[in-house]
Amino acid sequence: MLTVAIPKGGLLKDSIRLLQSVGLDFSAFLEAGNRQLQITDPSNTAKALLVRNSDVPVYVEYGQAQLGIVGYDVLREKAANVAQLVDLGFGPCRLSVAVKASSPYRSPLELPLHGRVASKFVHCAREYFQSLDLPVEIIPLAGSVELGPITGMSEAIVDLVATGNTLRENGLIEIDVLFQSTARLIAHPLSYRLDTYSLHDYVKQIRETVSQVAAR
Amino acid sequence: MLTVAIPKGGLLKDSIRLLQSVGLDFSAFLEAGNRQLQITDPSNTAKALLVRNSDVPVYVEYGQAQLGIVGYDVLREKAANVAQLVDLGFGPCRLSVAVKASSPYRSPLELPLHGRVASKFVHCAREYFQSLDLPVEIIPLAGSVELGPITGMSEAIVDLVATGNTLRENGLIEIDVLFQSTARLIAHPLSYRLDTYSLHDYVKQIRETVSQVAAR
Repeated sequence: MLTVAIPKGGLLKDSIRLLQSVGLDFSAFLEAGNRQLQITDPSNTAKALLVRNSDVPVYVEYGQAQLGIVGYDVLREKAANVAQLVDLGFGPCRLSVAVKASSPYRSPLELPLHGRVASKFVHCAREYFQSLDLPVEIIPLAGSVELGPITGMSEAIVDLVATGNTLRENGLIEIDVLFQSTARLIAHPLSYRLDTYSLHDYVKQIRETVSQVAAR
Repeated sequence: MLTVAIPKGGLLKDSIRLLQSVGLDFSAFLEAGNRQLQITDPSNTAKALLVRNSDVPVYVEYGQAQLGIVGYDVLREKAANVAQLVDLGFGPCRLSVAVKASSPYRSPLELPLHGRVASKFVHCAREYFQSLDLPVEIIPLAGSVELGPITGMSEAIVDLVATGNTLRENGLIEIDVLFQSTARLIAHPLSYRLDTYSLHDYVKQIRETVSQVAAR
């Protein structure tokens, strides 16, 4: 049976709405008190797995799900071996470099050599500073990255910014953008090539839905 | 000022109670609606950072906090360069290998060669299977590791078990224990050596409190 990996959190509602538009109803994941991580569409045509954002590419890479929905930021960070098919448009955010507003730094190249940068996006941050030829130490954090500059542990952070509220509340400002991110439809490469469970039909329908939304 | 890194989540309450017993009051972190990540003790003698469990060793390793409280599981997984000082006794759990109860495996050595093991504890799992001379593929997941065997992506998982309820609810059983874990008091090695901010006094008091509790 076709299986779709759906991310918990911010992208969940839009993901379920999109799949409903192509006839797959996984809205049971949105019910209050839902504890299921795996459900079947009422029409019995497809299954969905509810997993962490960063686990979506894992389930798709291993072929446990043929399709998945995940932020471009996660795809960049994990460098997963999956096929990127459609930019779904929702979940816009950006991966940015930010510093304390009270600091003297207004561009990444003004950061001190061998300075420190805290981030959950270790690979993206490393790649970015290497491309600038700026040697910095990346400090891997799992949460509340803004504490890096606040406590003085790091001069800068590389973190996802959506509204910018968290930065503002913590007295931080963006000084550069690594890339923009939105949700993407991804597929297991071999399943896509073999059109397993007729997944091409779903991809085509999703592509049409997305371009209709974009045209409005 | 002496700074203590305190973990969010399951160890928070006991950590704050322990620090209160040595005269440091960070109970403001427990107030409903608290959004602060950094507070100073009312007596103005020490500061606390409220961070993710896995970030505690980072703040301590970089010397941003001289002391920290964190699970032994995290210390093992991250192999952080910190001084382990006191076994605090609370937060007991174990890192275990589990499989589907309906599977034929009743010992790790019965797992298929080149089988798959899903885990958040990638380093611990790899080390363990290497010590058994059993070649397996470790699949790194960030959450809901029990989905690995349920979906058929992996034969086994390596995950933290406290009560065992999550395993039972998902039809999984433990077949081996990698190690037992409890909360530990850790210190920045250089700060400990230099007795920065008289941290030896606090460590001594904490040690006494813990041995009094253990003697009861």
